Amino acid sequence: MEELTVGLIGMGEMGRIHAQNLATLPHVRLLAVASRREDARSAAATSLNVSRLYADYEALLEDDDVEAVVIAANTSDHAELVIAAAQAGKAIFCEKPAALTLAEMDRVLSAVRAADVPFQIGFMRRFDPPYARAKRQIEAGAIGRPVSFLGISRDPYLPAPEDKSALARGNLFLDLGIHDYDLACWLVGDQVVQVYAVGGALVYPQLRDFGDLDNAQVTLRFANGAIGSINLSRNARYGYDVRTEVLGSEGALRIGDVRQTALDLLTRDGVHYGTYPWYQERFAAAYRQELCQFVAWVQGQAEPAIAGEEGRTALAIALAATESFRTGQPVELDEGSHIKRHRIAP
Amino acid sequence: MEELTVGLIGMGEMGRIHAQNLATLPHVRLLAVASRREDARSAAATSLNVSRLYADYEALLEDDDVEAVVIAANTSDHAELVIAAAQAGKAIFCEKPAALTLAEMDRVLSAVRAADVPFQIGFMRRFDPPYARAKRQIEAGAIGRPVSFLGISRDPYLPAPEDKSALARGNLFLDLGIHDYDLACWLVGDQVVQVYAVGGALVYPQLRDFGDLDNAQVTLRFANGAIGSINLSRNARYGYDVRTEVLGSEGALRIGDVRQTALDLLTRDGVHYGTYPWYQERFAAAYRQELCQFVAWVQGQAEPAIAGEEGRTALAIALAATESFRTGQPVELDEGSHIKRHRIAP
Amino acid sequence: MEELTVGLIGMGEMGRIHAQNLATLPHVRLLAVASRREDARSAAATSLNVSRLYADYEALLEDDDVEAVVIAANTSDHAELVIAAAQAGKAIFCEKPAALTLAEMDRVLSAVRAADVPFQIGFMRRFDPPYARAKRQIEAGAIGRPVSFLGISRDPYLPAPEDKSALARGNLFLDLGIHDYDLACWLVGDQVVQVYAVGGALVYPQLRDFGDLDNAQVTLRFANGAIGSINLSRNARYGYDVRTEVLGSEGALRIGDVRQTALDLLTRDGVHYGTYPWYQERFAAAYRQELCQFVAWVQGQAEPAIAGEEGRTALAIALAATESFRTGQPVELDEGSHIKRHRIAP
Amino acid sequence: MEELTVGLIGMGEMGRIHAQNLATLPHVRLLAVASRREDARSAAATSLNVSRLYADYEALLEDDDVEAVVIAANTSDHAELVIAAAQAGKAIFCEKPAALTLAEMDRVLSAVRAADVPFQIGFMRRFDPPYARAKRQIEAGAIGRPVSFLGISRDPYLPAPEDKSALARGNLFLDLGIHDYDLACWLVGDQVVQVYAVGGALVYPQLRDFGDLDNAQVTLRFANGAIGSINLSRNARYGYDVRTEVLGSEGALRIGDVRQTALDLLTRDGVHYGTYPWYQERFAAAYRQELCQFVAWVQGQAEPAIAGEEGRTALAIALAATESFRTGQPVELDEGSHIKRHRIAP
Repeated sequence: MEELTVGLIGMGEMGRIHAQNLATLPHVRLLAVASRREDARSAAATSLNVSRLYADYEALLEDDDVEAVVIAANTSDHAELVIAAAQAGKAIFCEKPAALTLAEMDRVLSAVRAADVPFQIGFMRRFDPPYARAKRQIEAGAIGRPVSFLGISRDPYLPAPEDKSALARGNLFLDLGIHDYDLACWLVGDQVVQVYAVGGALVYPQLRDFGDLDNAQVTLRFANGAIGSINLSRNARYGYDVRTEVLGSEGALRIGDVRQTALDLLTRDGVHYGTYPWYQERFAAAYRQELCQFVAWVQGQAEPAIAGEEGRTALAIALAATESFRTGQPVELDEGSHIKRHRIAP
Repeated sequence: MEELTVGLIGMGEMGRIHAQNLATLPHVRLLAVASRREDARSAAATSLNVSRLYADYEALLEDDDVEAVVIAANTSDHAELVIAAAQAGKAIFCEKPAALTLAEMDRVLSAVRAADVPFQIGFMRRFDPPYARAKRQIEAGAIGRPVSFLGISRDPYLPAPEDKSALARGNLFLDLGIHDYDLACWLVGDQVVQVYAVGGALVYPQLRDFGDLDNAQVTLRFANGAIGSINLSRNARYGYDVRTEVLGSEGALRIGDVRQTALDLLTRDGVHYGTYPWYQERFAAAYRQELCQFVAWVQGQAEPAIAGEEGRTALAIALAATESFRTGQPVELDEGSHIKRHRIAP
Repeated sequence: MEELTVGLIGMGEMGRIHAQNLATLPHVRLLAVASRREDARSAAATSLNVSRLYADYEALLEDDDVEAVVIAANTSDHAELVIAAAQAGKAIFCEKPAALTLAEMDRVLSAVRAADVPFQIGFMRRFDPPYARAKRQIEAGAIGRPVSFLGISRDPYLPAPEDKSALARGNLFLDLGIHDYDLACWLVGDQVVQVYAVGGALVYPQLRDFGDLDNAQVTLRFANGAIGSINLSRNARYGYDVRTEVLGSEGALRIGDVRQTALDLLTRDGVHYGTYPWYQERFAAAYRQELCQFVAWVQGQAEPAIAGEEGRTALAIALAATESFRTGQPVELDEGSHIKRHRIAP
Repeated sequence: MEELTVGLIGMGEMGRIHAQNLATLPHVRLLAVASRREDARSAAATSLNVSRLYADYEALLEDDDVEAVVIAANTSDHAELVIAAAQAGKAIFCEKPAALTLAEMDRVLSAVRAADVPFQIGFMRRFDPPYARAKRQIEAGAIGRPVSFLGISRDPYLPAPEDKSALARGNLFLDLGIHDYDLACWLVGDQVVQVYAVGGALVYPQLRDFGDLDNAQVTLRFANGAIGSINLSRNARYGYDVRTEVLGSEGALRIGDVRQTALDLLTRDGVHYGTYPWYQERFAAAYRQELCQFVAWVQGQAEPAIAGEEGRTALAIALAATESFRTGQPVELDEGSHIKRHRIAP
C-alpha cells in the first residue's frame, strides 16, 4: 500500500490534533501544511518534519503532490475551503460542521458531487471504540428496534471569550450538539422529523449578548415514532462528559463514561476517581481512527463511512433546534433536510 | 414513645408492601385492614397478626382505635378515601397520586385542611438513601445552583392487560412519571412553568386503544430558567431502571443504578451483573422509611416531609404532559398549579 | 406459623443489632434479655417492649418460656454460655466464634450433640445477598471448579483501646479473619490442609503489647490443590471493606463493594462516592436473614444452614494462622481439624 | 531534537508490538530489523518501511548507524544479546526478563556497566497511565505509608503448547509474575526480604511435565514489615486481568480494571460488558510510552526510569518463589539480591 500525501489546512487546536495523527499514521505522509501563522508553520516543520509550508491555503491546493486535504480551519471558512479543494480535485476530510447554513451546505455538496472526490466530515465519535461497537450491536439486533435515544454532551468550561473563533464555531446547538444529532440518526437508524429545544444562558449570562446559551435540552422525534433527547451544557465543572444511551424494544446500550483511567483513590473522604479533562483525551483514539478510515477510503481499501449528506442532516437539526429555542415552538424538518440513508459501515 | 395504631385500606401489590412494613416497624401497630377480598383479609390475619378485618373501608374509618390510615386502594378511589379519612379525623398516608384530576385534588386538599390532619403522599423516592443524601448535598451547596435535571424511569414490562387497575392508575405520564416530576421540583428547588412531551406506543401498540403510550420524553422549564428532561419507558427488558442526574453551576450528582447486588460473574462472554427486577426491590428501604417518617410526624417527633400541595404540583405536570402529547404543543402551567415551596426536610 | 420466643444474652454492640432484628422479625417474639448492665436492660424494655429482663444469663436459661437463645455476650464467655444453653434444652444461635480454643470448641460441640438442639454460628456473610447468590452460582457450575479464593476484610479503624472486650475477641486472625476462612471453605467446597501467615503491627504499634497485629496476609492450601489468600487490615481509613473473589476453571465471581449508595458527586476534583462506614451498614440484611434462617430451622421450616463443625474448622484455621505468624512456618491442619462437608444450603 | 536510529532484534509477538510503535513514534527511526525468519523481515520492509534487514543479530549490532537496539527475541537469548549489544556500544532496551538466572543477570549488569550504555528493561506497566499516576500519588503522600500490596495477574489462556518459546519464557512465577514483583517493590518503595509461594497445575495438568503451574499465590515480606500478595493464573477465561491495590496507613489505591470499553449491553439477562482480550490491548499505551521514555533518556531528555538492578531484584523474587513452591518453605532473600533503591521517576 502506497503512502497517501496529505496537506493540512489550519493549525489551531483541532489542526494540531490532526497533524499529530497524520505524522504518525501508517500509509500517510503529511507533506504540506497551510497556516497564516508563521509560528504554527515552523512548529510543523521542526516537530513533524513537514516539508512544504504555505501561508495560504490556495497555494497548498495548487500543490499537485497533495492528494488529500484535511480541513481544520475556522468553522466559518469550512464551506469555502471544501469547495475550493473539490475544484482542485483533492480528496477532502473536513472538520464538522462543513457549513453554517443549509444553502452553504448545499453548495458544498454540489461541489463535491461535481468533482466526484471523497469527502468525509469529522464525526469522530462514530470511530470511538464503544460507539463503533454499539452500532454493530444494534445492527446485530442486540437491543431489538431502537425506540429512545438519550445523549449527554457537556463541556467542562466555556471557550475563552477572547477566542473569537469560538463564537464563529456556532452556538451551543451547533458547535456542541452536532455530534449528538449525528449519533442519534446513525444509532436510531431513522430520520428526524421534528425538533424542540429549551435552554438558557444559566451560568454564563454574558453569552446572551451573542444569542448563545450554556445549557439546553433538545427533543427529537423520528419518522418511525422513536424519540430522542439531548442534554447540552458548558458547565460540567467535573470534566468532559459525553454519554449516550439507546433503549430498544429488547434491551439497551450505554456508551461512554466520565472516568478517564482505572484508578481509584480511597481516603477518609470515600472513593475518588478522575475524569476526562477535555475532548482530546476522551476521543484520542477516535480522531486517529477517523483519519485511518478516510485514508483507507481514498486508497480504495474501505467503503465510505459517512456520507456528505449526513453532515447536512445534522446541520439541519442544529438550525431547527436554534429556531425552536427562539420561537418556543416545535419545528418540523421538511423532506429536503434529509437524506436517504445508505448502509455505510465505520 | 407509644405505638401508633394504623389501619390499612387496600391489599393489592402496594398494600401488601405497606402491610409488611407496618407489621414490623417499631412504634407501630397494624391493627386493622380493609379489603373487599376475603383471602387478603385472612392472609393479613394469619401472616401479620392483624386482628380487625373489614370488608369495606367505611367500617375501618369508624373504628375509633385506628389513629392513622394508609391508603393503598385503586388509584381511582384515592380521592374519595382521603376525603372520608380526613372527615373521620384520621392521620392519612396515601399512595400517589391522591387524585386523577386537579379539581378532585383540590377537594382532597380542602378536606385535609378542614380536618387539620397529617397527610402524606407516597413519594417514597425522597426517602431512598441516595436521593435523601443528594437532597442534603444540594442544600449544602455541593453542586452550586441546579440548572439541569435528568430523570430516567423505566419499568421492565407492561402491567398485565387483565389488570384493570393498571389502566385506572393513569397513563404513562401520570402513573410512572409522577415520581420524576416530584423529584425534579424537589431537587431543583423551583417550580415548573412549562411542559412539553413527545412519545408513543412504540413497543405495545395495543396501548393506543386506551390513549396510553409506552415511551415518552418530557421536557420541563422551571421559573428560574433551569431545564429538566424525563425519559419514561415500559420496555426496559433488562430490569427496573430509575436514575436521576442534577447538573449544577459547580458540579453534578448522579443518583441510582440498575445494579441490584455487588456480584459480578466473569465468563468467556465478559462480565455480567444483575439488575433490580422491579420497584419493590429497588425501593424496599424507601417504602419502609417513608412510613417511619409518617409515623414520626403523626407522633410529633418529626416535621412533615411532603406537603399535600406537592402532590398537586406533580399531578399538574402529569396532566400538562398529557395535554402536550395530545396537542403537540408546549403547555404553560398557570399559577394555580403551584405551591409556594416551604423548606421541609426528609 | 407460631411465634418463636427468644431470649437474648448480651446487649453490647452485636447484642443490640440482634435485638433490633428479633424485635421486628415476623414469627419471633423477643421475650427476654439478659445483661449485667441495668441501662441495657431498661433500654430493651422501653424501646423494644421486652418484658422479661434478667441480670444474669442463668435466670434467662431457667425461663421455660424461652425456646431459643441468641448469644451475643463477650467472646470469651461464648463457650460456657452455649454449653449451659444446650443443657437447658434451648435452641442456640451464637455469635462467632463459639470458642477460643479447639478443646473448648470440642466441649461445645459435644454439649450441643448431647442435647440435640439446633445450634447456628453467626457466619452472617453467607446470608448476604451477593454471597448467597455467588454460592448458588458456583453450585450451578457457573465458574467451573473453584481453584483460587481471594478475600479482603478490612476494618476502618482499631477497636477502642479501652474496650477490653475487643482484646478478648481474639487477635486479627481470629476476630476479623474467621469470616473469610468460613467463606473460603464454603465457596471453594473443600477443606484447608495448610495455612501460612505473615503480618505485623504496622500502623498501631501498641498492638504488639498484646501480641496482636493490624495487617496480615493468610495463605490457604486446600486438599484438592486449590489455593486461597486472605488480606486482613484494621486501617482501611476509607471505610469498611469486605470483598471476595473466586476464580474457577471456567470463570470467576467478584463479591462485594466498598460503595454504600448509588450516589456520585462530580466536582472540579473529579468523581466521589461514599463507602460503608462499618459492618452494621454493610451486613444489615445478612444479620436479619441469618436469624430468619435460624428461626425457620428451629420451627422445622428449613434445613440447617451451618453445621457446628464448620465453626470448629474456621477456628482451627485462625489458630493455625496465628501459629504460622509466630513461627514463620507453614502449619499443616491435621485430620481432626476438619469436618466432612455435608451439603447444606443457605 | 534529532531522530534516534533504532534496530529491533526479534519479530515475534512482542517484537511486532515494538516495531509498530517504533515505526510511528516521533523522534525515532526504525532503521534495521534482525530476524531469522524471512517472512518477518519482508513484512518489516513492506509494512513498516524498514530499510536494513538482517538475518542474524550480529550483523545488526555491527551496523554503526544503529544507535539503539530493542531486544525482543526469545527470553533465553536475552542475556547473550544484551551483553553483545553493550559490547557494541548500543543503547539497549530489553524485554523482561533480561536473564533467567542471577549469575547470568550479573554478567548482563557487568557488561552494561562496563560499556556505560543506557539499559532499560521492559517493565511497561510502570508507564501505564493509572500505574504512573498511582506512583505519583503515593509519592505525594495520598495514602500515607504503604503497608500492604495486592497484585492480580491473570492470563486468559495458556500459551499454545506448540509454542516452544513459551516454555523458554520461564515458568508462571517468572514469565507472568515478574511484572508484579517489580510493581510491588516500586509502589511499596522497599525491598523484599522473604518470599513464600503455593500453587499448582490445577487446570492444565500437562504443565506438570514441565515443572510449571497455572495458579499460584506468592506472599512477600518487605524489609520495613509491609506485606504483599500476588495472585497468578493462566485460566482467566473472562479476559486478561491485571489489577493492583496498595493499602497505606492513610488510604488506598486501586489500579486497573477488566473492562475494556465504556459500553454496557443491558438485556433480559442483566448488564454485560466486555473485557480486555489480551495484554496488547490492555497495555497498548504503556508499550508506546516505555519506548518514548527510553528514547528520551538516550537522547538526554529524561532521567532513566528503571535501573538495571531492578530487573535483577524482580528476577530474584521469581526464583525465590519457584524455590518456595518446590520446597514448601518460605525463602529468605539475601543482601545480594537487592539493590539500593535510588529515586527514579517514570
